[in-house]
Amino acid sequence: MHSNKLKISVVGLGYVGLPLAAALSKHYEVLGFDKSKKKIVKLLKGNDPTNQLRSKEILNKNIKYSTNPKLINNTKIIIVTVPTPVDIKNKPDISLIKNACKTIGQNLSKSSIVVFESTVYPGLTEEVCIKVLEKYSKLKWKKDFNIGYSPERINPGDKIHNLENITKVISADNKKTLITLKKIYKKIIKKIFLAPSIRVAEAAKIIENTQRDINIAFMNELSIIFSKLNINIHDVLQAAGTKWNFLKFEPGLVGGHCIGVDPYYLTYKAKKIGYSPKIILSGRNLNDNMTRYLYLRYKQLLTEKFKKQKKINILLMGITFKENCNDFRNSKPVEFYKLLSNLENIKIDVHDPYVDKKEIKKEYNIKVIEKPTIKKYDSVVLLVKHKEYERLTYKNLKQYCKEVFFVFDIKNLFFKRFKEKNIFTI
Amino acid sequence: MHSNKLKISVVGLGYVGLPLAAALSKHYEVLGFDKSKKKIVKLLKGNDPTNQLRSKEILNKNIKYSTNPKLINNTKIIIVTVPTPVDIKNKPDISLIKNACKTIGQNLSKSSIVVFESTVYPGLTEEVCIKVLEKYSKLKWKKDFNIGYSPERINPGDKIHNLENITKVISADNKKTLITLKKIYKKIIKKIFLAPSIRVAEAAKIIENTQRDINIAFMNELSIIFSKLNINIHDVLQAAGTKWNFLKFEPGLVGGHCIGVDPYYLTYKAKKIGYSPKIILSGRNLNDNMTRYLYLRYKQLLTEKFKKQKKINILLMGITFKENCNDFRNSKPVEFYKLLSNLENIKIDVHDPYVDKKEIKKEYNIKVIEKPTIKKYDSVVLLVKHKEYERLTYKNLKQYCKEVFFVFDIKNLFFKRFKEKNIFTI
Repeated sequence: MHSNKLKISVVGLGYVGLPLAAALSKHYEVLGFDKSKKKIVKLLKGNDPTNQLRSKEILNKNIKYSTNPKLINNTKIIIVTVPTPVDIKNKPDISLIKNACKTIGQNLSKSSIVVFESTVYPGLTEEVCIKVLEKYSKLKWKKDFNIGYSPERINPGDKIHNLENITKVISADNKKTLITLKKIYKKIIKKIFLAPSIRVAEAAKIIENTQRDINIAFMNELSIIFSKLNINIHDVLQAAGTKWNFLKFEPGLVGGHCIGVDPYYLTYKAKKIGYSPKIILSGRNLNDNMTRYLYLRYKQLLTEKFKKQKKINILLMGITFKENCNDFRNSKPVEFYKLLSNLENIKIDVHDPYVDKKEIKKEYNIKVIEKPTIKKYDSVVLLVKHKEYERLTYKNLKQYCKEVFFVFDIKNLFFKRFKEKNIFTI
Repeated sequence: MHSNKLKISVVGLGYVGLPLAAALSKHYEVLGFDKSKKKIVKLLKGNDPTNQLRSKEILNKNIKYSTNPKLINNTKIIIVTVPTPVDIKNKPDISLIKNACKTIGQNLSKSSIVVFESTVYPGLTEEVCIKVLEKYSKLKWKKDFNIGYSPERINPGDKIHNLENITKVISADNKKTLITLKKIYKKIIKKIFLAPSIRVAEAAKIIENTQRDINIAFMNELSIIFSKLNINIHDVLQAAGTKWNFLKFEPGLVGGHCIGVDPYYLTYKAKKIGYSPKIILSGRNLNDNMTRYLYLRYKQLLTEKFKKQKKINILLMGITFKENCNDFRNSKPVEFYKLLSNLENIKIDVHDPYVDKKEIKKEYNIKVIEKPTIKKYDSVVLLVKHKEYERLTYKNLKQYCKEVFFVFDIKNLFFKRFKEKNIFTI
């Protein structure tokens, strides 16, 4: 079964690229390329910077890690898994994918296939990537090299829906390329779906997270309305959830580098062709403003409870963008922290069992503590539903707090279980 | 098991009230009250005006139909199932439910329970209905009579999710009332969910259809964007649908008296308390504008295909608000018909196997034909996915058309199956 003849590059070794490279290396010779020296050094020592894979999954005789782009020239399949973020104005920042195309172009050998897994707007692969590849390779698309697009669907922290189990959509610029790619992906993934075109595959990916974004935005809007009506939204969702076709979303902060970002790629393209999206943008705006809304509610609670107190000690639980994951890119809890830290008279301890303490100190100057201090806090804010927090009892929580304290539980984790009067939820 | 002592009134005998009254009459003596004489005459003959129940389900020794409100005085449980529509400005029209409360109030006996099943905004039962009941009955709420709220979840045309199978949310003004209501509903419905308050039950209902409305609006927005990008949305949805958590909605017209109406009740209440809904209203506006958008696309197709033709014969398939159902209240196909009929040079035949031809002629002056004419049409528009249309072959369709014709298939019914070049979809 093992065919070591075909050599594959994976360009970009993050949440998407690394598990992919590791899985492919069971069947092919793989080059894991990343421009970050630090990352490659870590990987060569058997450490996954994203904390997902174990040493023996990363290191084996079929996989090589390098920052040397020249090695790409020796591989026939190049899979691009670099991030596609947005800039500070929420416009698609496609510099990373363009840079990757430049690097690959400069090292592209004839009759290779370049496959993009990065999330893009419909048309980006054909309108942007192919041009850059042609320019730097001096090769001709379809004559000298081919293109595929297969959107990543990695769900960090999810053990059930992993690379092997998630249906993989693949598309290519012609049938032959499609069949080659199908053979490769089929080795590591159970179900393959062949999309009729690259643009359809691009579009399919971009709408998946946008759909989640809109549904969570709806929940957030409901939480704002019901909070004004003094109705507990969690009670409402429980009742509505008894209908067979009710979709069980929950209100909350939507950050990260997928759901919080993908809608902007779609709306960017839509605006370019003269349509200003209504519902997608209103959902995105709602979710983007949610941190500020929750901060204002919390500030009001603080004022109500401790109006005369000179110093308030606050414990923030969770700082990453989602549960059971160390990723803090575009994290809304970080945004909440920043808003809160501007308040006078308060002192914040941040706790998170997953985050890399050095990295977040370097990036945002946030000091993450090892362990909360006993009897220290006037108030606790639960921001992320890490499994370590799910295990806590009310007594566990209470031990860290002063006699009089209150909890702001934006994940409805403690509120639901403890039913204590000093716990407030969304 | 049969207890004929408890007498129940059902006020309003439409899609909700009639099946409820019929089901309850297997266990209790039931009065079916409606102010429409015409409806009562039909029912007494064993004919269901909504075309859902058979004669033997409607007529039995335990059920009485009447327009005489005085009979309500003789019943201890009064269930209100009148419609709660919106007016021409999309504002909640609560006149019907207020009138029902007046009628019930004037005939309310002591220690009765009044249960509302109509969809309302959170707070309406307590803020409006109870006041009207007190005023006209001269009785005191909680002392002389009690209140319950149990939202209807009837899905017309759905044989799987019927009254018996759909979990019923019930709520009441105190525990004793709740237990009484639970006993009654339990006789006819498998699963009962007790909501913690009337307002929670009201809120739960109003968000269910709003969630559907928003998700369909998202699909409609995507169909507009992808149509501009020349990407077939149905291909995209098929690819996206291979992800485990993608929600399978489809673009289309959202009319009727639930999904098209409920969001306005929620937004009305939200605005009243000072919050202007963003995502809910943008979804509603999108769906409300969809008929016009599709009409404009169709008009463009007509111009392209038949620019010099003096007379164009068009066949509209389906005029009700949804499939396999005779209801045309707030039907978007009717709206489409009206827009289209303003065009010059065209002649429209409307076909629908379900609609009541007399009723729709009376209400909208639309003549519905028995059968399409052979070789007559230049163009066909499929508006409703009635099961009779699902069975058609391309040959069936073609026989009604001229040599050169095209189909505008807004339900992706023919497009998907026939793959013919003269079929255009959303």
